[in-house]
Amino acid sequence: MKKLFSFSLVAFFLSFCLEIAAAEGPLKAAWSTTDCLVGKTECPSPFGNGKTQKFTAWRGERLHAKILLWSSTDGGEVGFTVEEPQANHWVDDATTGFLRYVMTDELNKDGKGGCGYRPDKTQFDSSLVADRIEPIRSLRYEAKTVQPVWITFDVPHDAVPGLYRGTVSITYDNKVCSVLPYSIRVIDRTLPEPAKQKFHLDLWQNPFSVARMAGVPLWSKEHFDAMRPLMERLAKAGQRGITATITHKPWNGQTYDYFEDMITEIKRADGTWMYDYTVFDRWVEFMQSCGVGPYIYCYSVIPWELTFRYYDQATNSMVDRKLAVDSPEFDEYWVNKLKAFASHLKEKGWFGQTIIAMDERPEKSMKAALRVIRKADPAYKISLAGNYHEDLNAELFDLCIPYDNKYPEGVVATRRAAGKITTFYTCCAEAFPNTFSFSQPVEASLFGLIAAERGLDGYLRWAYNSWVESPDQDTRFRTWAAGDTYLVYPMNQSSVRFEKLIEGIQMFEKIQVLKSDPRRARMVGRLLQPFAYDKIKGASLQKEIRKVNAYLNSK
Amino acid sequence: MKKLFSFSLVAFFLSFCLEIAAAEGPLKAAWSTTDCLVGKTECPSPFGNGKTQKFTAWRGERLHAKILLWSSTDGGEVGFTVEEPQANHWVDDATTGFLRYVMTDELNKDGKGGCGYRPDKTQFDSSLVADRIEPIRSLRYEAKTVQPVWITFDVPHDAVPGLYRGTVSITYDNKVCSVLPYSIRVIDRTLPEPAKQKFHLDLWQNPFSVARMAGVPLWSKEHFDAMRPLMERLAKAGQRGITATITHKPWNGQTYDYFEDMITEIKRADGTWMYDYTVFDRWVEFMQSCGVGPYIYCYSVIPWELTFRYYDQATNSMVDRKLAVDSPEFDEYWVNKLKAFASHLKEKGWFGQTIIAMDERPEKSMKAALRVIRKADPAYKISLAGNYHEDLNAELFDLCIPYDNKYPEGVVATRRAAGKITTFYTCCAEAFPNTFSFSQPVEASLFGLIAAERGLDGYLRWAYNSWVESPDQDTRFRTWAAGDTYLVYPMNQSSVRFEKLIEGIQMFEKIQVLKSDPRRARMVGRLLQPFAYDKIKGASLQKEIRKVNAYLNSK
Repeated sequence: MKKLFSFSLVAFFLSFCLEIAAAEGPLKAAWSTTDCLVGKTECPSPFGNGKTQKFTAWRGERLHAKILLWSSTDGGEVGFTVEEPQANHWVDDATTGFLRYVMTDELNKDGKGGCGYRPDKTQFDSSLVADRIEPIRSLRYEAKTVQPVWITFDVPHDAVPGLYRGTVSITYDNKVCSVLPYSIRVIDRTLPEPAKQKFHLDLWQNPFSVARMAGVPLWSKEHFDAMRPLMERLAKAGQRGITATITHKPWNGQTYDYFEDMITEIKRADGTWMYDYTVFDRWVEFMQSCGVGPYIYCYSVIPWELTFRYYDQATNSMVDRKLAVDSPEFDEYWVNKLKAFASHLKEKGWFGQTIIAMDERPEKSMKAALRVIRKADPAYKISLAGNYHEDLNAELFDLCIPYDNKYPEGVVATRRAAGKITTFYTCCAEAFPNTFSFSQPVEASLFGLIAAERGLDGYLRWAYNSWVESPDQDTRFRTWAAGDTYLVYPMNQSSVRFEKLIEGIQMFEKIQVLKSDPRRARMVGRLLQPFAYDKIKGASLQKEIRKVNAYLNSK
Repeated sequence: MKKLFSFSLVAFFLSFCLEIAAAEGPLKAAWSTTDCLVGKTECPSPFGNGKTQKFTAWRGERLHAKILLWSSTDGGEVGFTVEEPQANHWVDDATTGFLRYVMTDELNKDGKGGCGYRPDKTQFDSSLVADRIEPIRSLRYEAKTVQPVWITFDVPHDAVPGLYRGTVSITYDNKVCSVLPYSIRVIDRTLPEPAKQKFHLDLWQNPFSVARMAGVPLWSKEHFDAMRPLMERLAKAGQRGITATITHKPWNGQTYDYFEDMITEIKRADGTWMYDYTVFDRWVEFMQSCGVGPYIYCYSVIPWELTFRYYDQATNSMVDRKLAVDSPEFDEYWVNKLKAFASHLKEKGWFGQTIIAMDERPEKSMKAALRVIRKADPAYKISLAGNYHEDLNAELFDLCIPYDNKYPEGVVATRRAAGKITTFYTCCAEAFPNTFSFSQPVEASLFGLIAAERGLDGYLRWAYNSWVESPDQDTRFRTWAAGDTYLVYPMNQSSVRFEKLIEGIQMFEKIQVLKSDPRRARMVGRLLQPFAYDKIKGASLQKEIRKVNAYLNSK
């Protein structure tokens, strides 16, 4: 395990905070916004210790609250308890606790995004951000720092509309030092259950990272046990895609834990192929049991290196075979494999929900992929996460283009009429909005609004949990801006970014409900205008979101 | 390809030979003995240019003749033709041709054997020996060298007894320069067909070397095609054992081409094992089709490193697992594998002829092997090539001890009465007799006589064709004295050593025939006395062998 923080910047962050020192009493506590990051040693400007934190919610909605604790004293034991409005339990214990600071870095020096290699960490400024939600209710307070508390309420789907009141009590050395009231007004509207959400969420899962961090053998019972709460969390957010890999290193091992082929491919001594789907089946069935689905995205016919690894019976060894996309061997390899795969999928009853998935690759490669897929079974569904290509559009059941890219007029409507999925994605390329660990949390809540404004079906991000070496402490990686590779933490710990993403999805869902009323649809349209590509601005975001929320939560 | 000869010793060998210079005429030719090596630049003492080479043979016997060619002139085209006694063809074309010189080294400096590493070739004297029989009938003669011709006759099993005469014509630049007469007296006795020989010959085959030298994929049609003549040659010599490997590197990869597991072992993601016998079956069936059998020797429950390689489905990778012989995991691994193997062997009808084979290993390991084999199936046949161990003896269907080791009184007879096989072996340890490429060829013909003298069933050598890097040119290796690792050459070229080994086997077979007559048995017993362990001597060998042969070929 790497040591927590390894360089002198830390000393700088922990230097004495005059403002904190000036605060009265042993420990201050105040509600704070969940939209923004706070500095670990930056004295907060509380917006009302005694004030009530007021929520309005639909039935079935998830709500987030943040409390800041700070003190000029030396450290001590701090804790909190949530007095709930009524007997039934609304607090999500797994997503309520203290926020933990993790190391992050920054955008590229030109401010234009976070792509590229970062082998030398000193080339980027690093800082600490309170992103990880550790589900504990007490800890040793570190003197002269800001310690945030994160509370997640899940309003039940069967909650009776009305006003609910509760408090959060803060204790210092086992004595209550603050009581912070809150209220939740539940209105007579209901958000759909995750499985019935309209939002198409696709965050790619990395089971290999989980095995490493949990220290358990791949695909063992212990591995699935370790993944279950994490993947159930994802399902609850509305995840629609199971990320499956059908080649060794589809993305050339760009993540700390590379993705391995879930199809066992054996070249027999007589030259024929034997496929075994044990791993694939176990993974898919497990994910389905977690509530993720219905789609199974299979990466990739065109892995970045075009190298295909298989077990070679004759030599009792692994073979890496490089195949040019215009070679007969490429077609032979894939048509054979995809035909057998189609048979297997049909046997399992999964063929209709399985999508052979591609990333943006050179045109020649993408056409080769289409060619072999169609040769193997013309009915295969195909997806692309990449730029819009007019001549590929019709072939793609699921098309996902970058945030900066634009669908031509009419394309989305035509695709929707044909029952196809049309979404957008962010990755390292977008400076704003994004979900780097240094991004302002409010940015994560925009994706639902942006999808709504563009009339799209949802959002894709390539990394739900491709963890780095020490993901709990340091979100930085050898490539890309910090946090690019994961939105949740090991041991099923959520992040501020992931929770804010959910807020955006909920807004999207509310919009879908209200849009059925043409009058409301027009109003919603107007309220979404500030989130259009050419209008969206960091400065006014919170105000505009408040406006949308006020409308969505009005009777 | 390495260059043919890489150091200055060659210059020494090729230095001017005064005696050769003194020879008359353009090219001299004379019969020579097959028992001894000749120097490449050493002027021969011909024992009669015009003399007739006289053979006496049983029907079905293989006969060898050697002719030396030498000249003081510059090089030229030389060739030979064999005029056969009658219309039907007795010459074995695949084993008749020019002898080729190959590089060899010598015994260890203490003269006690050829074991140990030889990383520095300059630590040993090197020389050229005419060992490889290339089946060609003409070549460019290299001036002032001795160029031997090798002729192999196979007297048909249905030959009519009588005296047959023929000649060998030597041509120099397409003109006959010598005609050497020979005669073969066929007596009214018949050697058994190879499959009916009593001699238990076990030379371990290395299919992996053949694939490399032929440049063909393992277990492909081309691979089997390349092996067929080589393995049919072995079958014709009376080979009884198919060398199969059931672990990765049973001998820790000590040969240039290591031995790979012929059982495909797959650890499935659910922790269960899947075995596939495609390679094993193809190899065994191929060897059977070549006439090798009936036994299938499977190496080894106790590979030298105790590391077991398998394909791990969960990680899509090869795993090397080290297992201590006293661990429950060792038993679990082997009992499971050997049980499944027994079922497969029974299905194929091979169980009764399959032998789980061991080399000499620490007592604890050998006992562990017996334990797991017996647990898996008490009826498995087991073999050991190693020292005599009284407490293992009863367990072993096939027991093979080193040349220098001795069976206690009565053991061989008891074993034979129980239908068991009892043999001896040579390896790097024996200075004499042996089949290093610098050993005198006559030594190879002793093994049949030694087996007969000791009352054993046959002989084992651990390497029929474990070829070195450039086996056609250089028989030296990184370990052991040169030639230790192979008796035949690529492209189905035989060696003087291998052919002389066959002569010894034929003597053994003749002895078995004659021994049925008690009077002859006594006489044979007397004639074999000089080949007893404490009496055998290099100096008188040829004389003693002549005596034995004279008796075996008498009416």
